Amino acid sequence: MLRDLTFTLDREFRLDKNENPFELPPSPREEMRKLISGVDLNRYPDPYATKLRGKLSAKLNFPQDRIVIGNGGDEILSMLFMAYVKPGDRVLTTYPCFSEYSRLCKIFGAEQHFLPLNFNDNEVSLDIEQLLDAIARVSPKLILLDNPHNPTGMFIDPAKLIEVAKLSFCPFVLDEAYVEFAPKSSLDVANDEMPSNLCILRTLSKAWGLAGLRVGYALCSQEIANELLEIKSPFNVNVISQEIAGMMLEYDEWMKSRVYSIRFLRDKFIDEVNEIESFYAYPSQSNFVLIRTDLNKDYVRASLKERGIRVNMLELDIKSFTWMRVSIGKEDELNYVIQTFRSMVRQPNAEFVIA
Amino acid sequence: MLRDLTFTLDREFRLDKNENPFELPPSPREEMRKLISGVDLNRYPDPYATKLRGKLSAKLNFPQDRIVIGNGGDEILSMLFMAYVKPGDRVLTTYPCFSEYSRLCKIFGAEQHFLPLNFNDNEVSLDIEQLLDAIARVSPKLILLDNPHNPTGMFIDPAKLIEVAKLSFCPFVLDEAYVEFAPKSSLDVANDEMPSNLCILRTLSKAWGLAGLRVGYALCSQEIANELLEIKSPFNVNVISQEIAGMMLEYDEWMKSRVYSIRFLRDKFIDEVNEIESFYAYPSQSNFVLIRTDLNKDYVRASLKERGIRVNMLELDIKSFTWMRVSIGKEDELNYVIQTFRSMVRQPNAEFVIA
Repeated sequence: MLRDLTFTLDREFRLDKNENPFELPPSPREEMRKLISGVDLNRYPDPYATKLRGKLSAKLNFPQDRIVIGNGGDEILSMLFMAYVKPGDRVLTTYPCFSEYSRLCKIFGAEQHFLPLNFNDNEVSLDIEQLLDAIARVSPKLILLDNPHNPTGMFIDPAKLIEVAKLSFCPFVLDEAYVEFAPKSSLDVANDEMPSNLCILRTLSKAWGLAGLRVGYALCSQEIANELLEIKSPFNVNVISQEIAGMMLEYDEWMKSRVYSIRFLRDKFIDEVNEIESFYAYPSQSNFVLIRTDLNKDYVRASLKERGIRVNMLELDIKSFTWMRVSIGKEDELNYVIQTFRSMVRQPNAEFVIA
Repeated sequence: MLRDLTFTLDREFRLDKNENPFELPPSPREEMRKLISGVDLNRYPDPYATKLRGKLSAKLNFPQDRIVIGNGGDEILSMLFMAYVKPGDRVLTTYPCFSEYSRLCKIFGAEQHFLPLNFNDNEVSLDIEQLLDAIARVSPKLILLDNPHNPTGMFIDPAKLIEVAKLSFCPFVLDEAYVEFAPKSSLDVANDEMPSNLCILRTLSKAWGLAGLRVGYALCSQEIANELLEIKSPFNVNVISQEIAGMMLEYDEWMKSRVYSIRFLRDKFIDEVNEIESFYAYPSQSNFVLIRTDLNKDYVRASLKERGIRVNMLELDIKSFTWMRVSIGKEDELNYVIQTFRSMVRQPNAEFVIA
């Protein structure tokens, strides 16, 4: 396969986890080194993450006592299940959805109900009426919806979702892990009038480029916050992550410029994919792109692997395409992916049709 | 109160959380600063903590695939509940026990059954026959026992507990958070013959002095390890904690010398407390000491608070004493506690009998 290209694979192209491709600039790195000298590692971390919550509160203009910090957004999701889902309870998600939602449903013994998204030829959408119908029909104990949506990149007007939350009788988790890449967030459209069952999830893993630190947070009503704080393991966020996260929040101009870069590279990448025969990249308001191709799945997987490209190959039960989610990396990484896609089309792929 | 002592409170004496009082020496601190420069914070941490587990495996001579790393031992406890405890299930602990066991029973809707320890005038003990009886009577889904025991400091021969585990029909969690302060550990007496329902918990928060990092681990059978790894949130231990923990394991001579210091200071502290009228310190094989006094509880609390001493005041329903758990701090801190106890006895305490 790809025999026209001879090269030595000296690196891996990690475009499978929706990470921010940009490392930290020298200035916060230097601050980090100083911070670490001052931290008492022998002492337990602040259970209330007071300093970090204070900084988030000021930055977001959101009440500090309604902010809950987690060991990544994942931990907050897990706390939400602990708080609201008993074995046999129903949880409503979309189809497809973030894999962690399904994993948690399984672990907590919940019945996962799916609302299928509408896959048109050139866009993915969610019908708000269908969502309301599903909520009425399923009577879930928890609703999980991410916006921008993973793995499709679809973005829904947050005002509409807040309206849906108002009409729901259970906690509505609006997962905004990728919201910095989108045109607006739920906080732009609601704040004081947030319905008390709405829980907004955020993370420093994506736009902030701090996936390795494990810091996520919930913005919610006092009711939900109290519930989560009771469940939360006392020392869930380590002292270094609390310190570095707080420090990094000062670098928001830097964060924003990285986000603009990623949005720019994303739109360019989508256009380029869409010029390649047999490939289609869906519109995205996130830092990843959903791509379908009619090339054989095993051939696609093998070709990418051979070239050291890691993407997220999706097992979607939607039409007979091969589906993948590609994270927006640096420009040279994306050019290399485009090159690879092109050469895949030029190659005969019969030999890769594995039984 | 304590009017004979006039001083300005310029520091707090944090003897309430069983932390290691010694900060890191300069050499690992310097290594930490270098480590942090090389870490890719924008990438998710290794879900398998391969490097750290490899180092633990080599150090403990324990199979790597039967080691599970948690965001502190607390997270592993929580995973054990997720794996083995459904609402209404019974969990067996001692009375008294580590507060986190009771908190988790409450969160997971478990029925907590207590085996009372025997409080004699000068020692605390657990009757192994009574433990076996309780297991047979209660039929728990999970047994939680820490050794050395928190908050009493009691230590039981691990060989006996391994025998109990062999006779139990549910996971037996032997929590060795404080084992480095004791004469031996369960790994000294069993290793290859570990019963498959035994789960040994360890932490870097105590002897290793890394409470702020949040790293704990389980040593268990392949069966339990697989169960925990399935439940574990993929990115539960952040990249910096993985790196620093791995690096610190090389400093085990340093760790051991700190542990000897703490054991020495502990034994000296116990002797000194026992020379004070109205106070009794129980023997301890841990880095904290259980103390009872017949002084009024509110008076004790107020006196300690006034002098900036934080200890863990225990709400024990055992005889009519005032109970507290004091962590072994540095020598000057312990001397100050001794001084304070002495002056409390000299003072009239009637005015502190608060309704």
